[in-house]
Amino acid sequence: MKTEVLAFFDRVRPAVDDSLEGLLPSESTPPSQIHRAMRYSVFAGGKRLRPALCVAGFGIFHSDPAPILPVASAIEMVHTYSLIHDDLPAMDDDDLRRGKPSCHKQFGEATAILAGDALLTLAFETMSNCAGFNPAALLRASAELARSLGTRNGMIAGQVLDLEAEGQTLRQAQVEAIHAAKTGALLSTSVWLGAYLGGANESDARNILAYGRKIGLAFQIVDDVLDETEGRDRERRKATYPSVFGLDPSRRMVRQLTEEACQLVQPLGASSSTLIEIAAFLETRCL
Amino acid sequence: MKTEVLAFFDRVRPAVDDSLEGLLPSESTPPSQIHRAMRYSVFAGGKRLRPALCVAGFGIFHSDPAPILPVASAIEMVHTYSLIHDDLPAMDDDDLRRGKPSCHKQFGEATAILAGDALLTLAFETMSNCAGFNPAALLRASAELARSLGTRNGMIAGQVLDLEAEGQTLRQAQVEAIHAAKTGALLSTSVWLGAYLGGANESDARNILAYGRKIGLAFQIVDDVLDETEGRDRERRKATYPSVFGLDPSRRMVRQLTEEACQLVQPLGASSSTLIEIAAFLETRCL
Repeated sequence: MKTEVLAFFDRVRPAVDDSLEGLLPSESTPPSQIHRAMRYSVFAGGKRLRPALCVAGFGIFHSDPAPILPVASAIEMVHTYSLIHDDLPAMDDDDLRRGKPSCHKQFGEATAILAGDALLTLAFETMSNCAGFNPAALLRASAELARSLGTRNGMIAGQVLDLEAEGQTLRQAQVEAIHAAKTGALLSTSVWLGAYLGGANESDARNILAYGRKIGLAFQIVDDVLDETEGRDRERRKATYPSVFGLDPSRRMVRQLTEEACQLVQPLGASSSTLIEIAAFLETRCL
Repeated sequence: MKTEVLAFFDRVRPAVDDSLEGLLPSESTPPSQIHRAMRYSVFAGGKRLRPALCVAGFGIFHSDPAPILPVASAIEMVHTYSLIHDDLPAMDDDDLRRGKPSCHKQFGEATAILAGDALLTLAFETMSNCAGFNPAALLRASAELARSLGTRNGMIAGQVLDLEAEGQTLRQAQVEAIHAAKTGALLSTSVWLGAYLGGANESDARNILAYGRKIGLAFQIVDDVLDETEGRDRERRKATYPSVFGLDPSRRMVRQLTEEACQLVQPLGASSSTLIEIAAFLETRCL
C-alpha cells in the first residue's frame, strides 16, 4: 500500500512540475528578478501533497489527470505564496525553508512580498483560464479556492489566530479551529476541487470535502508530533496538539481521524483507493 | 462639464461604498483584527476613481449600474491591497496614507501584509461570485483583472521596475513602461471590465481599453507634475516625467494623451460622454 501511494506521488509530482513550468514566466522574462524569486520558491522541492490530493480527487472519476493539472498547479502556487509570506520577518521570521534560504533571505523582503502576491494572482489567472471545464463550475471552483484562503475560516484566518495565540494557553476547540483554518481549509479544498471538477455529485463531493478536513487535521497533528519528537523548530510553533494533549493522545487522534476519513470515501468503491492510501500514508509518518 | 463629472463621482462613490460595505466582513466578525485592518484601509477616503471608470464603461451600455458594482468593488479591493503592500517598510516605507497612519503603522506589519493578501483574495472571490453575467465572460473578466495585477506588464511588474529604477537615469520608454504597468494596467482594465461585461463588441472594447491606457498614463504624469509643483514627497519617487522631460513638456503630453483618449471613444456617441468628461477632468488637475 505504501509502495502504491509512493508510486502515485512519483507520477503526480513531475506532471505537476511540468504544468507549473509552463504556467510560470521563465526566469529570463522581464522583470526577471520577480520570476526568479517565484520559481525559486515553487521549485524548492515541495512534496506536492495538495496537488496530489487534487489529482486523486479528480482520479475518482477520470483516468487521465491532464485536465486538472492547471488547477493542481494553481493550488501549489497559493501554497507557495503562503509559505513565502509566512516566512517574512514580520510573520514567523524563518531564514530557512526546506533547508534552503527562505525567499526573502535569498531575494530581499520587497521581492519576497511581491513574489507571494504574484503567485496568488497567477493562481487565480490560471483558474480563470482553465480550458475544458464548464465555466459556471470553474467560477464556483475559483470562489471556493478563494474562500479556503480567506479570512472567514480560511488560511489567513488561521494565520491571524496563530499569531494572536502566541504565548497563550489554548483549549482544544481553539487549537482545532486554528489548524482547520491554517492548514485544513486549503488541503480539503484541494481534494474537493479535483472531485467537484471531475463531476462528483453534491453528496459525494460533500463526503470528499469532509475526508479532506479529517486528513488535513491529522496531517497537522502529525506535523506537531514530529516537531515534538524530532525536536524541530518548536519554539516558534504557537498552538500544538502535543503541548495541549500530550504525545500519545495526539497519536490516537491521528489514528481516529484517519479511520473516519477512510470511512467517508469507502462507499465510493475501488476508485477511492488512492484517497485511502494517501490517508494511511500520512498517518504512518508519526507512528 | 466639471460639474457633471463631479456629480457622477458623487453618485458612484456611495454606491461603491455600499457595495464594499456588504462584501467586506464586519469588524466584529472573527478574527476581528484583520477585518478592522481591511476596512480601515478600504474606507480611508479613496476617491474611487477606478470603480468610477468601471461604472462609466458599463454605463455606455446600461443605465442601471447595480450589476457592475461588485466588479467595481473588487477593483477597489485590489487597488487598496496594492497601496497597503506598497506602503510596507520593505517597500516604499510610508507612514502616512491619505493623511492617516498607513495600515502597518496602525495595525502592525504582520496584519498589514495579511490584510493586503486578504483583500486580493476577496477580490477574486467577489469576481467569481458575481451574479447576472455570462459565466464564460466573467471568467475572462477575472483573468484580465489578474493579468493587469501580475508580473507581465501588470501592477507587480511596475512595482518591481520602479524599485529597480531607484537612483538610475531612465529613458522615456522606460519611464513610460513603468507607469503603464504600475498604474496604467489596472486603470485601463477597470474601464475595460465595465465595457466588456456591459456587452461591448470586440472593436469598441479595444478602443475603450486604449482610452484607459492613455488616461492612465496622463493620470500618472499629472501625479508627477503635482509632486513637482506642490513639493510633495518627491524624494521617494523614482521615475517621474518632469524629472526626465521637464514640467512644460510633461503638461503638453498630458494634453495630447487626453485628446487622443477622447478621440478613441467619441465614435461611441452620446453614451461615451462620461468617459470624455472624466478624461478632461483628470487633465485639469495639473493645469
